[in-house]
Amino acid sequence: MSSEAMLEAVEAQMRSLVAEVDDGEVLRLFETLRGGKRLRAKLVLKIAPHAESSVLLAAIIELIHAASLLHDDVIDDAMVRRGVASINATEGSKRAIMLGDVLYSKAFSALTDFEQPVARCVADAVTALSKGEMQDVVMAQRFNVDAERYLQMLYFKTASLIEAAVRSAALLCGKEPERYALYGKNLGLSFQIIDDILDIVSDEATLGKPALSDYAEGKCTLPYIYLYDALNSAGQERLVALHAKAPSEADALWIKSEMHSAKAIERSYALAASLSAEAKAAVDDPALHQVLDTMLERRF
Amino acid sequence: MSSEAMLEAVEAQMRSLVAEVDDGEVLRLFETLRGGKRLRAKLVLKIAPHAESSVLLAAIIELIHAASLLHDDVIDDAMVRRGVASINATEGSKRAIMLGDVLYSKAFSALTDFEQPVARCVADAVTALSKGEMQDVVMAQRFNVDAERYLQMLYFKTASLIEAAVRSAALLCGKEPERYALYGKNLGLSFQIIDDILDIVSDEATLGKPALSDYAEGKCTLPYIYLYDALNSAGQERLVALHAKAPSEADALWIKSEMHSAKAIERSYALAASLSAEAKAAVDDPALHQVLDTMLERRF
Repeated sequence: MSSEAMLEAVEAQMRSLVAEVDDGEVLRLFETLRGGKRLRAKLVLKIAPHAESSVLLAAIIELIHAASLLHDDVIDDAMVRRGVASINATEGSKRAIMLGDVLYSKAFSALTDFEQPVARCVADAVTALSKGEMQDVVMAQRFNVDAERYLQMLYFKTASLIEAAVRSAALLCGKEPERYALYGKNLGLSFQIIDDILDIVSDEATLGKPALSDYAEGKCTLPYIYLYDALNSAGQERLVALHAKAPSEADALWIKSEMHSAKAIERSYALAASLSAEAKAAVDDPALHQVLDTMLERRF
Repeated sequence: MSSEAMLEAVEAQMRSLVAEVDDGEVLRLFETLRGGKRLRAKLVLKIAPHAESSVLLAAIIELIHAASLLHDDVIDDAMVRRGVASINATEGSKRAIMLGDVLYSKAFSALTDFEQPVARCVADAVTALSKGEMQDVVMAQRFNVDAERYLQMLYFKTASLIEAAVRSAALLCGKEPERYALYGKNLGLSFQIIDDILDIVSDEATLGKPALSDYAEGKCTLPYIYLYDALNSAGQERLVALHAKAPSEADALWIKSEMHSAKAIERSYALAASLSAEAKAAVDDPALHQVLDTMLERRF
């Protein structure tokens, strides 16, 4: 099967799992979701293309990812997802929460068909990502200057499921799980750091949301931590005062120009690049190296 | 071990599973939850007291139940749970949603230690209960006159997890799963019907919330469906007009007096009693019969 055909098989498998829930409203809501990049499914298929159950595993992990985004959007009061109105915006947060629960639990039901190490690693990742989301909520309450703590939260919230996708695919086809897991973890971390950078350097049209919205939502991402590091105490005070508020145009310009002087974007990008290099060293597979390169170069 | 000691072991197992998540905020929030009756744990322990993993299974199912209540309370905007302020009231709905996700996923991780039929039956019940909650949300939008449809929703929302608790415990110790499942399903259904009755016949002090609050929240429970059946068209119109609103004192009195004339409570109670009788016939175990009798006789 070509990789396009396999991805289509994943989409069909996802729909079929959701159809098994046998509820019209659930299916209708699911059909309104935008698919996204399907990064996790692509990773599973690249690593275990010939394993019998790789399509099912990829579908399960994408259902889990979709569920986490549904709850994420409720928690962030996000009105837009992938350029279109989010389900909590159009259908209300009750339906978004419940659809998320249905997708999570259906994914877990299907996971019980796998060997215990595979099922366990994916299930553990869901605990990690929920814990990461909780830490994200807690950390958004005040300015955080601790890069270590921020990266730890990112690991739980974003990298853990990518790590689990890669590790479980490796388990499925007898490849070395620890090396693949390291690849997945670092890919996930650098992916999110690039996301955080794009929130600062891209314009509203590209992002599909206002620039600098992470900081306005209280998310103190890596470039802000590096910027704080570099500012004098008056600058630090101004930065902290702007935390978790929609910035004026002048404040937004100030943030961007100080980010420039502090080389906060460059420092963040350098960390993403070094994590990527470590990921490349862990696995000897040109297709997986390509995923890292594409991710580092993306502009939206 | 005495049954009290076993229940304490379940509580300790729950705490230990949550502690494994290794997040201070998660543990703090979990500690604020009220335990409730632990009906599902008691059923598991009564059915499989000697199975090695019955305490773990009971803890997993109670974590799932706690997670479902957390999301339920967010969805219902419930400010009170078991007589104290709910987590979404005191800590915000973001934390309530995330704590629910953490408890669900931790329960699923632990489930992967069980044989596939046990894990599958519990995981499927979570899909059923999320689907039931979704149907509850959809059905609350308009007056529903279909008793069959209402009972179907109750099965998914309330009975499915009780059924799974009982079935999985039977699987654990080699008892007949289908007979036990029928017991669990009917116990769950009659349990919820009694709950619906109590919302109408009890006073605010006993309930810990205003009487008739189900109907005010849009929940068209069995007694209302039977009442609608019995009313003339003017009465039906008045009843439908009161749906999903806080009733005036006069309206509340009217509802109660019409319920009385229509014998809507008696009819509902009779269904609960007949479901219970069927449950008794399915399993030959005095302790399980006692659970049904206590449930039918409860006043709060």
